Amino acid sequence: MAIYKAPLRDMRFVLNEVFEADKLWASMEATQEVTPDLADAILEEGAKLTENELFPLNRSGDEEGCRFENGQVFTPAGFKEAYNALAEGGWMGLGGNPEYGGQGMPKMLTVLFEEMLYAANASFTLYPALNSGAALLLDSHASDAIKEKYLPTLYEGRWIGTMCLTEPHSGTDLGLIRTKAEPNANGTYTITGNKIWITGGEHDLAENIIHLVLAKLPDAPAGTRGISLFLVPKIKINEDNSLGEFNNVNCGSIEHKMGIKGSATCVINFDGSEGIMIGEPNKGLAAMFTMMNYERLSIGIQGLGLGEVAYQSAMDFAKERLQSRAPTGAKCPDKPADPILVHPDVRRMALNARVFNEGSRAFASYVGMQLDISKYHADETTRKHAADLVALLTPVAKAFITDRGFDATVEAQQVYGGSGYCREWGAEQYVRDARIAQIYEGTNGIQAMDLMGRKVFANNGEFLNIFIKDVREFLATASGQNGMQPWVAALETELKRLESVTAAVMTAAKENPEEIGAAAVDYLNLFGLVAYAYMWARMVSVAQQKVDADSSGFYANKILAGNHYLKRVLPRTLSLEQQILAGAEVLMAMEEEAFYGN
Amino acid sequence: MAIYKAPLRDMRFVLNEVFEADKLWASMEATQEVTPDLADAILEEGAKLTENELFPLNRSGDEEGCRFENGQVFTPAGFKEAYNALAEGGWMGLGGNPEYGGQGMPKMLTVLFEEMLYAANASFTLYPALNSGAALLLDSHASDAIKEKYLPTLYEGRWIGTMCLTEPHSGTDLGLIRTKAEPNANGTYTITGNKIWITGGEHDLAENIIHLVLAKLPDAPAGTRGISLFLVPKIKINEDNSLGEFNNVNCGSIEHKMGIKGSATCVINFDGSEGIMIGEPNKGLAAMFTMMNYERLSIGIQGLGLGEVAYQSAMDFAKERLQSRAPTGAKCPDKPADPILVHPDVRRMALNARVFNEGSRAFASYVGMQLDISKYHADETTRKHAADLVALLTPVAKAFITDRGFDATVEAQQVYGGSGYCREWGAEQYVRDARIAQIYEGTNGIQAMDLMGRKVFANNGEFLNIFIKDVREFLATASGQNGMQPWVAALETELKRLESVTAAVMTAAKENPEEIGAAAVDYLNLFGLVAYAYMWARMVSVAQQKVDADSSGFYANKILAGNHYLKRVLPRTLSLEQQILAGAEVLMAMEEEAFYGN
Repeated sequence: MAIYKAPLRDMRFVLNEVFEADKLWASMEATQEVTPDLADAILEEGAKLTENELFPLNRSGDEEGCRFENGQVFTPAGFKEAYNALAEGGWMGLGGNPEYGGQGMPKMLTVLFEEMLYAANASFTLYPALNSGAALLLDSHASDAIKEKYLPTLYEGRWIGTMCLTEPHSGTDLGLIRTKAEPNANGTYTITGNKIWITGGEHDLAENIIHLVLAKLPDAPAGTRGISLFLVPKIKINEDNSLGEFNNVNCGSIEHKMGIKGSATCVINFDGSEGIMIGEPNKGLAAMFTMMNYERLSIGIQGLGLGEVAYQSAMDFAKERLQSRAPTGAKCPDKPADPILVHPDVRRMALNARVFNEGSRAFASYVGMQLDISKYHADETTRKHAADLVALLTPVAKAFITDRGFDATVEAQQVYGGSGYCREWGAEQYVRDARIAQIYEGTNGIQAMDLMGRKVFANNGEFLNIFIKDVREFLATASGQNGMQPWVAALETELKRLESVTAAVMTAAKENPEEIGAAAVDYLNLFGLVAYAYMWARMVSVAQQKVDADSSGFYANKILAGNHYLKRVLPRTLSLEQQILAGAEVLMAMEEEAFYGN
Repeated sequence: MAIYKAPLRDMRFVLNEVFEADKLWASMEATQEVTPDLADAILEEGAKLTENELFPLNRSGDEEGCRFENGQVFTPAGFKEAYNALAEGGWMGLGGNPEYGGQGMPKMLTVLFEEMLYAANASFTLYPALNSGAALLLDSHASDAIKEKYLPTLYEGRWIGTMCLTEPHSGTDLGLIRTKAEPNANGTYTITGNKIWITGGEHDLAENIIHLVLAKLPDAPAGTRGISLFLVPKIKINEDNSLGEFNNVNCGSIEHKMGIKGSATCVINFDGSEGIMIGEPNKGLAAMFTMMNYERLSIGIQGLGLGEVAYQSAMDFAKERLQSRAPTGAKCPDKPADPILVHPDVRRMALNARVFNEGSRAFASYVGMQLDISKYHADETTRKHAADLVALLTPVAKAFITDRGFDATVEAQQVYGGSGYCREWGAEQYVRDARIAQIYEGTNGIQAMDLMGRKVFANNGEFLNIFIKDVREFLATASGQNGMQPWVAALETELKRLESVTAAVMTAAKENPEEIGAAAVDYLNLFGLVAYAYMWARMVSVAQQKVDADSSGFYANKILAGNHYLKRVLPRTLSLEQQILAGAEVLMAMEEEAFYGN
């Protein structure tokens, strides 16, 4: 059966040892009260909550799914109680603004709690994850009056936020949306339109649902420059924050999906609902990106959480599964066969999953750290530098973590053999639940276009150079360190490869804009592999310094896992380089008609 | 919604133009009556049957699944009628021995029909696919009396065969099986034991089920050398082939699985059932390998069929889906957006799926051709040469086709965006149905061990050299052909890479047997990429010769698709080479305990 224990040792390693969170937190006013002890207590309590309250509902939630009846959505048994536990424990506002009742914890810490949430129960976690993003959006773009009215209640979990973008004919291309917002005399707007794939669009967890909706004003310009953003509660809210009358927000149906079956994916019809504009007219998409970028990192962490729980569960299976003998002779001669981890190919699958999970944990924390610096650091240049890094790394965090998380769930399932395909063992659910993370919140192809087009090409590699400079600064220090020479040499080679490939694509794209999309996914993967090599080098560097004094084996294993990444994973860059340099013509030469019919 | 049209044009191309089946068939006595017209009529009729009878049951079969009630298994609505249509049309014995009522069609042709079957309805197809393998086993190893009694009825589909190997504690390691076979005075055996994961172990399609069961005699040696093979009918059969009494073969339950939900995966309990020994005592596993090798190629084709239908359906979606504008400017200015195939990254996904599907079709046909030569050719050396090739290529056909087939279903699903995750569109079912093909019939890791250990290392590369010689003979011819220079150069490079990597692993494995398993999966992928490059070179070579005289675009598109394979897929060998050369130590260095718990 599936198991989950929050990987607290590794989380502490990343937080305290690799990135020295205590020093950073002490250096910034907004985080000065976050001591290592407080952070550790949060991780410990988070582990208890996720392991004991959420994880037991994961399989049953998948089997039961959400139920739609007469416009109402019922979440699986136990979800409501688990939600109450989360809300009552103050977890819904963990990263929220303290001015409005949030806990104000740094992102670097909350990403680790998010990993636990997704690992324990990905379907369930989508409800609070969207709420956090909605609250962040309001905190960034709403008026003080709206913040005062909504944020405390959202942080409490009494109301809960959603994100309403997609329409049947308008997904990636949001410029096509048709939902209308007509101004009323009292300053509100009347919202009319049909949204689809609204995660948590309707359910029974909270007393009210606060929809953040993209819509068009009557005089809006065409395309993405004519999109405005509205807050539309399911039930109208009175002056005193008590609930008023129904706001004509109707759930038309829920989707029947491959996975995340405990997450209600809704058709939401706004049938003349009252909404409040957030931010400026026609600037709604930019405001929505605050939420989207939040969710992109969050969805990346969904990939990590599922990769982690899949790996742990597969290893628990491997421990008990005796099959064949080790190639070098019986390891357990008193048993009918040896545990399957004696076989090199089972090790290969296990280590592939493991090094990506540990790499993703470090990478998500690194992005979280840059987010904190961009928000809280006293120095403006430092903030700008971190914000640029966040812009560069967000699409990578979304796409590369979810792609490698999906791979990890598939490799973990393979470790089980036939049991991995039977529902009772749970491994197949992780594959199904991980698959969506590559699709929603902007497909991974769209993330790659964002990286290659907007974050690299559009600013002539400026953000990329900040990242490369950060890596080279580390290499300058590490080059003198015992045991780090192979890492320094490999990273220097990979940075040069990244630079030359980037230059080649940028040159080609000036002639032909199709080169951006042609290179994008392979480029994102190349970038991800190099970024993870940097993460692994930093982890190995710390481990090398501590391994001699350690009897637990933690640092020795970290060095060995790093070696797997270096020798058996990082060489993937060789192929990606050639695939990118092949260019757009190979892809675009065939007539479009040749793909249809046969 | 999903669509399926059998790719007859491409099938004819592979059969008649690339491999010139007519010449081969005319040259061998057993196949002399198979004319191109007959073959074509079979493909046409096969297309009608699979498109019209099986495909419409694919989604409904997935939604309904199999039902278990009081020991009985009910297949989804329509399966029984479709099975009858298959049986009445003579399709169950298409490749069967004509001496016993089979149609005697060459494997090179039947692999193409199998592709249609799996594409149209993978769950359904497993029932006849196991029957064909069971009949082949009996034809190869049973006495004339048994063949006369069973083969005509199996070819008719009145009875249906299964394959009973796995037990709860014994999957990959069949030496651990516990099912017992005790001799009776009348020459039969009493079979007692529990088998799991028996595909089609119980169902309502045929009037009797003929189980082929691995079991141990009371005095059997330990391990795989003590396994015998038995024929155990569900219902005993009288002298006159009428049905007798129940044979105590009980279905204990069916599995709830990730996919192939219309295929009944059964616990089968033999509670003192009467069985007949097939072949020699304690030589049962070798005889069973006749069936297993048959099924391995068949399951490979499951991967191809699902990759093909997933690709076709995704392209049908892409045709209608308008989203964003082409990077070079609007292609359909009169529409709100362009069809998504204007985007290079959508092209990349489509072409990846397409070149693997077309490569797999050629590769499966090539293996089928070698099977026919090994069976029917007049010259003994030629037969031996072909049989050695089949031994080498069977694990590649099983693992590489299913791995790339799974990739194709995932890439196809990605083309849909969010619709790909919703069940109604059908794309997600293909992913779930394809996933099992990488696991059952010997996991793909086991196939890789078979290739690297038994088929390459154990005979010092002898089989591999036959394959390489075949490729080099083609290259000698192609090197003078216009347009083939890039292919000749690339294949020469890849053959040298394959040779040097093979030599390195064989040398290392002499010192450390763990090197076999450490290299195996990457080696199989390297081999597969090179073998598919050979297939593509042969296809492009034919296309180059015909392209000028062709106005349909078929050959021009074949050349362009080949170019994608050459430039954007084949470079994967670069990484695999480095991963293989990293060796076993990287994988085995960590203590086993370090994988358990955290």
